[in-house]
Amino acid sequence: MSEFAAWLESTRARVDGALESALAASTLASAPPPLPEALRRALLAGGKRVRPALCLLACEAEGGSLVQAMPAALALECVHTYSLVHDDLPCMDDDALRRGQPTLHVVYGEAMAVLAGDALQALAFELLGAQADAGLARDQVRLLARAAGAAGMVGGQAQDMESQGRACGDETVRSIHERKTGALIRASFACGARAAGADPERWRPFAEAIGRLFQATDDLLDATRSSAELGKTAGKDAGAGKATLVAVHGLEAARALARREAEVARSALATLAPRVRYDELADLPRFLEERAR
Amino acid sequence: MSEFAAWLESTRARVDGALESALAASTLASAPPPLPEALRRALLAGGKRVRPALCLLACEAEGGSLVQAMPAALALECVHTYSLVHDDLPCMDDDALRRGQPTLHVVYGEAMAVLAGDALQALAFELLGAQADAGLARDQVRLLARAAGAAGMVGGQAQDMESQGRACGDETVRSIHERKTGALIRASFACGARAAGADPERWRPFAEAIGRLFQATDDLLDATRSSAELGKTAGKDAGAGKATLVAVHGLEAARALARREAEVARSALATLAPRVRYDELADLPRFLEERAR
Repeated sequence: MSEFAAWLESTRARVDGALESALAASTLASAPPPLPEALRRALLAGGKRVRPALCLLACEAEGGSLVQAMPAALALECVHTYSLVHDDLPCMDDDALRRGQPTLHVVYGEAMAVLAGDALQALAFELLGAQADAGLARDQVRLLARAAGAAGMVGGQAQDMESQGRACGDETVRSIHERKTGALIRASFACGARAAGADPERWRPFAEAIGRLFQATDDLLDATRSSAELGKTAGKDAGAGKATLVAVHGLEAARALARREAEVARSALATLAPRVRYDELADLPRFLEERAR
Repeated sequence: MSEFAAWLESTRARVDGALESALAASTLASAPPPLPEALRRALLAGGKRVRPALCLLACEAEGGSLVQAMPAALALECVHTYSLVHDDLPCMDDDALRRGQPTLHVVYGEAMAVLAGDALQALAFELLGAQADAGLARDQVRLLARAAGAAGMVGGQAQDMESQGRACGDETVRSIHERKTGALIRASFACGARAAGADPERWRPFAEAIGRLFQATDDLLDATRSSAELGKTAGKDAGAGKATLVAVHGLEAARALARREAEVARSALATLAPRVRYDELADLPRFLEERAR
């Protein structure tokens, strides 16, 4: 197993355990049905926990411990999960399958899926706000809210919706990627670095390259894999006439772009020069490239 | 003009001005179209700004200034506005009219209305996280996230949806009210008191009574006024078979319950005994009762 794959596996177990404890200690425990069940189903349906893993990795790389970055890691996963629940809605991407399971609106209806997503976003900030270190909580709220909002993740999804069925160029695809996936990936590294008391800005060049690489390989996966392999509906980007790297540049050029971003990430890591968890970080670009091969 | 009406009017102008400045300084300024326009339309469509007014009132009553509580006042309005945008969706209350204007999904489509609501919630936490006082920011994030989430506002809307067309008793109606309206009203007073450095818990008994009174008069208004008078669709609670005080107890008993909550609020205020802005607070129960007369 590669260094990053091992990190992902070992932190996933920690994240899943911490998530269970955090949910039990949160206000979700006193929420009316079916919200606790719906949120648990969305959160605990076997996500890969990539964003928590990146957050925890940046924290350890800056000399911090997993415990320090865990609230932010869980908050990032809550925001990511809410975005999946809302993206899957009939009025958005209209998807019935996610992580190999029926999507939330299929199980609970559309209204409850909207509300479960809304509650997940609130839960993310509840988890950050529950931290004893007020400076850390405030800074992470700032990082996460900006990344999740109209100029970040939500803005990317809005552009994605607007792009469907229209002729879009490279610039539009890059803007969508930077917001829709990139913003939360950047926030993952930034929140982790901040948890260790480091300057989140230090991580920006590396995080930006990883974000672009992540979305590039996501586009490649959607274009080349089956639904069974992905655990979600495959080929839906092309079906929906979405602006993707593959649609704009073709399969081979998209692969070349992914390779280039992996190189950019490696250079950025050399500048960042973390003394801890270097192997896991250095393996990350290759790990992401491998996904789409 | 009554004391509270005067407070509402004078703070509304301040809130609207501060909202314009905050939007310009927020990440919304760099969001892709149509989000900035959609969020501005939702936020600036002539809301009464009741929650900001309550937040600012509690802050001054505890010896603080308007400036100290303004970020929280704006954040509360963002959360309230997002809840209206999502509640009006076709899959929820399916309402085409709000504050006398076409609702957001009528103008921008359903997907963009979901996203605009999502962005408004993120914006609320962005505004809180932008504060210089980290302890204040963290505490208000905690108060707002809990009030807005699955056990609070979103939970109330979920119960409200689940109650439709079912025989519900007094207990269900009270639980819906406590969450759907009460939680954010309580958070308004709590965030304002915290902004002045006071203990938010001090305000709970008064805030709870005001929350119940507020929702009671809302039920009465829905049952007795025309759409033109309300600026939103009237009679929709009964039409949707919703659990309301009027549906459970009838019009006269619901009026009596409102009167009783006004009395509870007055007693709680006597215990609270604020030295500043007493007249405005003392007038609030009567002001709310008058709305539904």
